[in-house]
Amino acid sequence: MEVKNILADIPAKLPNELFTTLLQGEQLKIERIVSRGQSDAKDDWYDQETDEWVILLQGEAVLEFIEPAEFKQLNAGDYLFIPAHSKHRVDWTHP
Amino acid sequence: MEVKNILADIPAKLPNELFTTLLQGEQLKIERIVSRGQSDAKDDWYDQETDEWVILLQGEAVLEFIEPAEFKQLNAGDYLFIPAHSKHRVDWTHP
Repeated sequence: MEVKNILADIPAKLPNELFTTLLQGEQLKIERIVSRGQSDAKDDWYDQETDEWVILLQGEAVLEFIEPAEFKQLNAGDYLFIPAHSKHRVDWTHP
Repeated sequence: MEVKNILADIPAKLPNELFTTLLQGEQLKIERIVSRGQSDAKDDWYDQETDEWVILLQGEAVLEFIEPAEFKQLNAGDYLFIPAHSKHRVDWTHP
């Protein structure tokens, strides 16, 4: 069993969001997402087949949802359950 | 959809470890564990039916394992996959 650190190996320059799979099971994926100012284009919606539980560990982000139409501000430690097919996009992330 | 914070609602006094279920699905439970100096007695081993993925968000902890026999130090951001029936105990947590 190996201990790794979720804050390690973050590139100084990040031209795109960085997705890293930390654990992959039959029914579960644990993924680290690193964003530095990236966001999704307006009307570029995620429509996922699976439920997602997300927690923001560092920085800040704003997610936009369609139904109900709202923006969610996330600060460090904030978490949120996003049911499958709940369309959303990343409106803003802290640079 | 409600945003909650994993660092909120931590009692100032914590006579025992605090376990809070954040999400409960058919195949998955997401749980917050708050410890302030608590540990498990020597020879008091967890022997779990399910796999566990654990991440330490704040503080420090030391876990002990039987097979292989070793102690694992966890600092903020460290994560670890603990397979089912991998016997372990909490040897120490930061007060």
